[in-house]
Amino acid sequence: MAGGAGAEGSTGGLRTSRLDGLSDAVFAVALTILVLELGVPAGSEDHLLRAILEEWPSYLAYVVSFSTIGATWLAHSVITQRLHHADVTFVRLNLLLLLVVSFLPYPTRLLTEYFGNDDAQRVAATFYGLTLLATSTLVWLMWRLAVRRGLVRPEVAEEESGMLDRRLAPSLVSYVVLLGLGLLVPVVAIVGYLLIAAFLILPFRHRGKA
Amino acid sequence: MAGGAGAEGSTGGLRTSRLDGLSDAVFAVALTILVLELGVPAGSEDHLLRAILEEWPSYLAYVVSFSTIGATWLAHSVITQRLHHADVTFVRLNLLLLLVVSFLPYPTRLLTEYFGNDDAQRVAATFYGLTLLATSTLVWLMWRLAVRRGLVRPEVAEEESGMLDRRLAPSLVSYVVLLGLGLLVPVVAIVGYLLIAAFLILPFRHRGKA
Amino acid sequence: MAGGAGAEGSTGGLRTSRLDGLSDAVFAVALTILVLELGVPAGSEDHLLRAILEEWPSYLAYVVSFSTIGATWLAHSVITQRLHHADVTFVRLNLLLLLVVSFLPYPTRLLTEYFGNDDAQRVAATFYGLTLLATSTLVWLMWRLAVRRGLVRPEVAEEESGMLDRRLAPSLVSYVVLLGLGLLVPVVAIVGYLLIAAFLILPFRHRGKA
Amino acid sequence: MAGGAGAEGSTGGLRTSRLDGLSDAVFAVALTILVLELGVPAGSEDHLLRAILEEWPSYLAYVVSFSTIGATWLAHSVITQRLHHADVTFVRLNLLLLLVVSFLPYPTRLLTEYFGNDDAQRVAATFYGLTLLATSTLVWLMWRLAVRRGLVRPEVAEEESGMLDRRLAPSLVSYVVLLGLGLLVPVVAIVGYLLIAAFLILPFRHRGKA
Repeated sequence: MAGGAGAEGSTGGLRTSRLDGLSDAVFAVALTILVLELGVPAGSEDHLLRAILEEWPSYLAYVVSFSTIGATWLAHSVITQRLHHADVTFVRLNLLLLLVVSFLPYPTRLLTEYFGNDDAQRVAATFYGLTLLATSTLVWLMWRLAVRRGLVRPEVAEEESGMLDRRLAPSLVSYVVLLGLGLLVPVVAIVGYLLIAAFLILPFRHRGKA
Repeated sequence: MAGGAGAEGSTGGLRTSRLDGLSDAVFAVALTILVLELGVPAGSEDHLLRAILEEWPSYLAYVVSFSTIGATWLAHSVITQRLHHADVTFVRLNLLLLLVVSFLPYPTRLLTEYFGNDDAQRVAATFYGLTLLATSTLVWLMWRLAVRRGLVRPEVAEEESGMLDRRLAPSLVSYVVLLGLGLLVPVVAIVGYLLIAAFLILPFRHRGKA
Repeated sequence: MAGGAGAEGSTGGLRTSRLDGLSDAVFAVALTILVLELGVPAGSEDHLLRAILEEWPSYLAYVVSFSTIGATWLAHSVITQRLHHADVTFVRLNLLLLLVVSFLPYPTRLLTEYFGNDDAQRVAATFYGLTLLATSTLVWLMWRLAVRRGLVRPEVAEEESGMLDRRLAPSLVSYVVLLGLGLLVPVVAIVGYLLIAAFLILPFRHRGKA
Repeated sequence: MAGGAGAEGSTGGLRTSRLDGLSDAVFAVALTILVLELGVPAGSEDHLLRAILEEWPSYLAYVVSFSTIGATWLAHSVITQRLHHADVTFVRLNLLLLLVVSFLPYPTRLLTEYFGNDDAQRVAATFYGLTLLATSTLVWLMWRLAVRRGLVRPEVAEEESGMLDRRLAPSLVSYVVLLGLGLLVPVVAIVGYLLIAAFLILPFRHRGKA
């Protein structure tokens, strides 16, 4: 529960608990329905092993989308944990973030379907990259907004707050660079997107104790 | 947890925590399965970019349904936050609301499938609008019931309670107007539904601080 | 959180909070994926309104399944609210209940698909009814087990505990009767299942206050 | 909420509440979308009962996958209940576990689709078994990590902590044995997987009271 009893009772402060509840469930469904896109072509009885292995681009796309949604969830969790309450602009940005996260299975599917076709692959990779960039931009905006509006708990240190910025900002730049690169070599961009997700999952590190 | 220990232990008072848990998850799944309807026609290899852009009616329907469910979730969250406990009629209205919210992906799909066909589009837009009207009516009934049955916490101010009415009532009227308009110009009605959702997301504003 | 700190820390007592979390989400997904079965036949452009109306058996099945899952969720919520902790047998019965609830969309789909075909309809209605009976039996077993194992909080009155029995037992008998009736007139059985769900949603009534 | 106010406010300690929220929802969706694979062949009007019964391999796969996910959820619940907070490595292992759990419906589908075809069935059963082994290994790693990093609450007894090991380790060995056996007799391996799940659901037993 965010905020004191007063903040909770007023229209001003919104509980982060409901926001977390909805967001967790949306992240979870988005993570889990990615599997519905996986499958081998009908009639693979005689060479099922090969058919399974040949689906590697689907698995790559699955892992990249899963990791990105996972990283986004982690950043979301780290942010709302630091707030004493949410305001309406934060909630609207949050809904916008959930819209983009829910949307991600669609470009993921296109990426898988049109893999191997030179032109289509370029379009699919760019569409995919733009969705990832939107996700990352929204997370960063939510954090900037929370800081500027004074939603962050006073005990959260200056230095810690800076760390979030130092992690989110480079990922935005990387997405833009990879988007350009993806126009030339789509697969490289996709592997790059995986590395960004790995980088975003890493930073919220246990210091001192670990 | 709503209510004191006594209310919680009796059959009378129901915890709003379970109600919130179920509702959050239903809203989240309804939000997220909308993406399953998105897709380009098979064999779009040679013009994928155009195929993606030509799907704009799907995206519009996606955004309208997403925004409406988001707005409904927000109103639901604002209402249950103000209750000390739920009674059985409230819970039943809540289940009815979830039924309509879960149903929404079906008219959304029809709207997308029959877009562009003059007659069918009119039917689909009306069916869609009626579902939105049902959603909004149920939210408003839940709030009226909570006020009349004394489920609202005493510290919630008169003025605040009035604000919810002032926001929910006009949206009901707008839905009825747009339903009529949709018989003539379906697309205008759909854009109108988007505006209502935006209006419903807006009102629960942070006053004083923001 | 159920139980004291000691019960929570031992392998014996399991938190009902996680059980509630998983159960709420399973109930919610089961409720929401029912909509994926709804749809009009391809090529209904010229008579969409009629095509929508002709799908009424799907809507009936949708409402019956939704109401039954809703009633099961309500009974589940009423039961776990009365426990101070869960033991392993309770958790296993709970997993079994979730298995049957998750399974329900499958007989629901068969019921809709084979509606109108005399023989197949009889089979589908019986299969559907058996699933409902299994659901209801498991809920009743969970409550009996909780009472016998002493998982119920001491402040829950004798009379209240009897009320749950008085509500769950007749629904079991009704399911058996309707199963037999369904072999003769499937539609009547289905309407009967809807009435049982309505009856199960009703009983946990607010007394005194409402 | 895990950890004291200090741990919660720092980047080091992560709340297990959000981790539980996301995990519960992922487990629930994975459990529930298994039903989407169930169905009888089109045109079974004239022999629906037989068509339903002939789908028994699907039901077996459904029950095995459901039980394994259920057992994994239970182990996950037992582990996080014993932690005062999570660190970043734990969270990453947790995300990896969710990735494998979300992936399980895919090998389940292959197992069902290629049942009866000798060669393909062998491949599918091995692919399926490897996924179960990965799930179980990750749960075991999470527990080992929690113990080594000192994330476990001090009041959790030595003996209890050993019990988790004594349960998880044999299941790993059994998976490896069954994987070998599955190359010869796939169905036996699948029944074995069901027994492991049953064994994993059993151990967290109520002692003294039950």
